[in-house]
Amino acid sequence: MNVVLAPDSFKGSLSAPDACSAMEAGLRRVWPDAVIRARPMADGGEGTLDAILHASAGTATRATQRVPGAVGIDVDAAYGLIEGGDATVAVIEIAQVVGITDRVAMDVDAGARSTTGIGLLMRLLLDRGVREFRIGLGGSSTNDGGAGLLAALGVRLEDERGETVAPTPRGLQRLASVSAGTLDARLADARITILSDVDNPLCGPTGAIAVFGPQKGVARDLIPAFDATLARYAALAERALGRDVARQPGAGAAGGLGFALQLLGGTPASGAEVVADLIKLDAALADAHWAITGEGRSDAQTLRSKAPFVVAQHAARHGVPVSLVSGAVDSAASSALNRHFAGCFALAPGPCTLEECVDHAAAWLADRVEQVARVVAIRAPV
Amino acid sequence: MNVVLAPDSFKGSLSAPDACSAMEAGLRRVWPDAVIRARPMADGGEGTLDAILHASAGTATRATQRVPGAVGIDVDAAYGLIEGGDATVAVIEIAQVVGITDRVAMDVDAGARSTTGIGLLMRLLLDRGVREFRIGLGGSSTNDGGAGLLAALGVRLEDERGETVAPTPRGLQRLASVSAGTLDARLADARITILSDVDNPLCGPTGAIAVFGPQKGVARDLIPAFDATLARYAALAERALGRDVARQPGAGAAGGLGFALQLLGGTPASGAEVVADLIKLDAALADAHWAITGEGRSDAQTLRSKAPFVVAQHAARHGVPVSLVSGAVDSAASSALNRHFAGCFALAPGPCTLEECVDHAAAWLADRVEQVARVVAIRAPV
Repeated sequence: MNVVLAPDSFKGSLSAPDACSAMEAGLRRVWPDAVIRARPMADGGEGTLDAILHASAGTATRATQRVPGAVGIDVDAAYGLIEGGDATVAVIEIAQVVGITDRVAMDVDAGARSTTGIGLLMRLLLDRGVREFRIGLGGSSTNDGGAGLLAALGVRLEDERGETVAPTPRGLQRLASVSAGTLDARLADARITILSDVDNPLCGPTGAIAVFGPQKGVARDLIPAFDATLARYAALAERALGRDVARQPGAGAAGGLGFALQLLGGTPASGAEVVADLIKLDAALADAHWAITGEGRSDAQTLRSKAPFVVAQHAARHGVPVSLVSGAVDSAASSALNRHFAGCFALAPGPCTLEECVDHAAAWLADRVEQVARVVAIRAPV
Repeated sequence: MNVVLAPDSFKGSLSAPDACSAMEAGLRRVWPDAVIRARPMADGGEGTLDAILHASAGTATRATQRVPGAVGIDVDAAYGLIEGGDATVAVIEIAQVVGITDRVAMDVDAGARSTTGIGLLMRLLLDRGVREFRIGLGGSSTNDGGAGLLAALGVRLEDERGETVAPTPRGLQRLASVSAGTLDARLADARITILSDVDNPLCGPTGAIAVFGPQKGVARDLIPAFDATLARYAALAERALGRDVARQPGAGAAGGLGFALQLLGGTPASGAEVVADLIKLDAALADAHWAITGEGRSDAQTLRSKAPFVVAQHAARHGVPVSLVSGAVDSAASSALNRHFAGCFALAPGPCTLEECVDHAAAWLADRVEQVARVVAIRAPV
């Protein structure tokens, strides 16, 4: 047997590499001598850096840089550097800087958070000669439309009296002018790939604030004001930078950071697709008999370019059946998931709490993969 | 595909026939044209009658008889009559008369419950010419050592003054003599098969009271007294009936009803084995590609002659892989279960409460069987 393991992380319990280890442990109980290729996946959000570094051992290095987090308190943000043929590629996972799991930042009012730290990290990397960026959006606590990033890279944001405004949702309320004359000139030579699984535009009913604001702590009654502020900021920034991108799919990713990166010429790409490419998923699938993927919770959203879906699409191209083993599987999405997965399974061995499921995630994942493998083994050439 | 479905009931949620229906619904989503043979199983306890009647359609009839329940309140007990070549076989499920799910009986002190109703039912069946009995023990609320049954069939239980004592744990405390001279003479021609999955002797630390008393509401501090009462009763009854059976395996089944039935010449048999025989499980398995069994909860006890284990043994003889889909599967029993089942799965699609699992049992069982079938289908000739 030749099996590819390509799970996303199980949010809140297992990193993607840890999920691979658990899956491998379960498989080895059935096929001790199987060829098992672990290809931890990610979709641009948390875990993207780990997945890319895991797959690029030898050519990639993990580094850290101290930059301000979402509320200005310094964080040690990990990032990756991949040595290519002629250029160094920097891999940035924005959750490392402005992550929604940063309790300190989340305790501060959503109107006071900013992506300044991401812009500073990019500037430092430009200083070091990096011109190629893969930036994983996802898991952010910010709603600043990427104003912090732009400001850190030289864009001036001023009020009516010509004073600099804070690049936060609250600061932007006083925004009167945006000028790009002082933008870091090195960005003209930069190639920015934006990794995301979000298609939303910047503003409006399907925009960043309306859809993702509440989970970041934006009070329901503040949504119209935040949204209007971003719309005004976007119009000024678009004029200053000479691009119209606020309505582009993905402009609403990461509280509008997607907008700012597109404004700088960044190209949106499916996070999971870029990761699949970087980790050479196709090469692993080429001679596989079976693949297993999974994530914390699978539902209808899974089929919107999430990592397990991208794995299924790649596997289908190689004629490899792929099973899904996730923390939970939404029964209502079952028939949609069935079109892409040869069997969808959850971890729970019976009634249990979410806490039990998280506590036993590794052991139960190994058990569940073992049991599914035992069914495959009914007819597999063992 | 040719698939045999042979689950036990999922206690508290699905009868075995209902479990078969749910499993079939799930299978049909994968293989609309599969040959599916539903063989609901049972182990002698609750559901035994349903399983046998389901498999004997045409030759079996379901009847009901009003008899006293465990505390003397009448119950309408269902039983079965199978027309054989030369004899009618009566199938009695004692849980129909003295079931532990009878709330009224369970609200009454455990010392006041009796198996009299079972004896009366047997006597009525003897009146109707029945001489062959299959009696499913399991799920009883009684602890009378079968004294009620013996009394109903003519055995006299008296105190020191020659007065009849109640055939209950409390009544038997005054027992001074047992005489069998008035025993129903027709029993000499009767063939009684005792269906049970319990090997316990009548008394002592592994006896009926010590092991099963507490779950029937026998207070811990009353266990020694109840046990001593049964031991004294057993010695007197054995002498009166001329058989030594209290130490036989299975004498402790159903609060000692197993003892009384063995005293009458009954033969203990594995409930699940007898059911497998009556439902012609082997014939169904002969040309099957795959079998599925299951129960409410699978653990180490499952491998002690429970229905899924007996299904696995029969399937193994025919070289048919059998998967287990249960309400819950004890992770600790996994490696033991693996020796007999090609894949063990629980119903839960994620963290959930027992109540949710019970409420959604049919839908989730269909879903789970569907998903396991989709894995089988990876390589099956569809």
